[in-house]
Amino acid sequence: MELAITQPADFHVHLRQEALCELVTPHVLKGGFSTAYVMPNLKPPITSTRQALAYKATLEKIEPNVKFLMTLYLSPELTPDEIRKAKKAGIIGVKSYPRGVTTNSDGGIESYEAYYPVFEAMQDVDMVLNLHGEVPSDATNNIHILNAEPSFLPHLHKLHKTFPRLRIVLEHATTRAAVEAIKACGDTVACTITVHHLALTVDDWAGQSWNYCKPVAKYPDDRKALREVIKEGHPRFFLGSDSAPHPPHQKSNSTPSCGCAAGIYTSPILLPLTAHILESFDALDKLEGYVSTFGRAFYQQPADGSKIRLKQMVNGVSVPEDGYSLRDETVVPFWAGKRINWIISE
Amino acid sequence: MELAITQPADFHVHLRQEALCELVTPHVLKGGFSTAYVMPNLKPPITSTRQALAYKATLEKIEPNVKFLMTLYLSPELTPDEIRKAKKAGIIGVKSYPRGVTTNSDGGIESYEAYYPVFEAMQDVDMVLNLHGEVPSDATNNIHILNAEPSFLPHLHKLHKTFPRLRIVLEHATTRAAVEAIKACGDTVACTITVHHLALTVDDWAGQSWNYCKPVAKYPDDRKALREVIKEGHPRFFLGSDSAPHPPHQKSNSTPSCGCAAGIYTSPILLPLTAHILESFDALDKLEGYVSTFGRAFYQQPADGSKIRLKQMVNGVSVPEDGYSLRDETVVPFWAGKRINWIISE
Repeated sequence: MELAITQPADFHVHLRQEALCELVTPHVLKGGFSTAYVMPNLKPPITSTRQALAYKATLEKIEPNVKFLMTLYLSPELTPDEIRKAKKAGIIGVKSYPRGVTTNSDGGIESYEAYYPVFEAMQDVDMVLNLHGEVPSDATNNIHILNAEPSFLPHLHKLHKTFPRLRIVLEHATTRAAVEAIKACGDTVACTITVHHLALTVDDWAGQSWNYCKPVAKYPDDRKALREVIKEGHPRFFLGSDSAPHPPHQKSNSTPSCGCAAGIYTSPILLPLTAHILESFDALDKLEGYVSTFGRAFYQQPADGSKIRLKQMVNGVSVPEDGYSLRDETVVPFWAGKRINWIISE
Repeated sequence: MELAITQPADFHVHLRQEALCELVTPHVLKGGFSTAYVMPNLKPPITSTRQALAYKATLEKIEPNVKFLMTLYLSPELTPDEIRKAKKAGIIGVKSYPRGVTTNSDGGIESYEAYYPVFEAMQDVDMVLNLHGEVPSDATNNIHILNAEPSFLPHLHKLHKTFPRLRIVLEHATTRAAVEAIKACGDTVACTITVHHLALTVDDWAGQSWNYCKPVAKYPDDRKALREVIKEGHPRFFLGSDSAPHPPHQKSNSTPSCGCAAGIYTSPILLPLTAHILESFDALDKLEGYVSTFGRAFYQQPADGSKIRLKQMVNGVSVPEDGYSLRDETVVPFWAGKRINWIISE
């Protein structure tokens, strides 16, 4: 069996810096994607048009055959003037990270009200607001990593109500509550779903730090809700891989004092893996909408008309357990050591 | 400040076999405990009086200064006759493991009805039934490691109703639901609570496999319920450490295909750590009841009248990051690399 898919676009990817960036950026294309919506959580974060354009030039030098869509990191430095400047420079969106929730988000936001002038400008010029939709853990109020996303949803509703024309994307949704919240919003609000959240539940990252990411994979019923909305072919739910490379020593727990970075890396196997996972819950017929047309429509990024082809493999192909290396950098992908039933055939 | 505590008893500990057993058995005494209620999940499991007595002799040879209270592993091999024989031989209890839920529990039970003749005999001769209170994960029915314990509680209530005189201990309770369930039962039903479940929540084992155990630590509100029942000094809630040694390579996630064994090891630091944790939530005045008198009363194991003393250390003492070794075996305890504010002074 073969599939022909309109050029896919990954609407949420982390491409990092320096040697790690050189290693992982070509993996976007290797994984079947020629459009990448690039997250701004670098060190220091991308908070200006100037930085974003410099980063884009770096990425294009590493991989000229991918279209990089750039974002800014929401921070107090960001002004309405900078938003207008960014729009003119072709920057697509602004990413908001709640403080301390994920990699390099220490400078993230605490209250949205302070950013209302920025959001007003974004709404005017039609830029996209990308939300990492989790509140920080707070044991006193019983907020923890499993209810951090549902606890964020009132903020989403308030933003949507205040800025009804602002295009908002709730990133990497993981819960039934989030799916229902997005459905209840108007057409300006969409949602990315990662492929790993279509595969995992809490049982899979318990005692397995390589499956640990933020937001964490939730309960089986939440995964069911994510799968259902993909099977439904709802056009406001599409792929953002949240592919997030970390060196192996940051993903393993060699000692009790050696914590683990949150993040699952899928870029180099993304399209075949997505076909494999969608097939596992009988949603292969929704692949094109999920990985390509729905996201492209929301982001107003039409495809060039060309297709990418996938071929089914009887016994599958193995994902390398040792991962991929360049100089001193190594990344080991999700699904390492397991088999995928699809390959990119052209 | 000094504390004098009636000789503590650990009513749930794993002492393993062979070299690992030689390494960890003396740690019971090192951790301040001279009585240990020993779990039967060996390879093969302890299913007969003969095996239990042989295991007891092995443990006594390794550490003559600890009183070992022995248990049998509930399995189809166990008969009412064997129960009566075990009782005469001084064996205290029978441990039930739901199939596949924890270390070496593949032979665990699926349905309790088949064991009613055994429970009847246990009730007659006054042996204790120790329950690992979790049902296996089942994605189809949204059963996962975080609701596995609440989902088990109807089984507990049914057993208690059917065998009201049978002494039952729900082991290592982790949820508010379990605390309420135990309180609602009669005086024949008690509950062990580990010290690590008084310290951890789900956020602490996310991405940190060394803090991964079964049952997993739950939400902050659940930890609060455990702490509250200790502060209340409820006599049917007492310490069973569930101290469970595993070699470091089984606790770390060096590669994505290298899973992690469930278990947290606390034996060598148990009494000082317990004082430290109880002090952290203002329950130090409940230490003696929790680690000694409540469990001894339920198990009818009176103390010999001697006391153990703990001394407060201004700057604390560090728990060794490298753990403890004997020949080829190494175990790294919980709290490794952190400080504990109490030491055993005599």
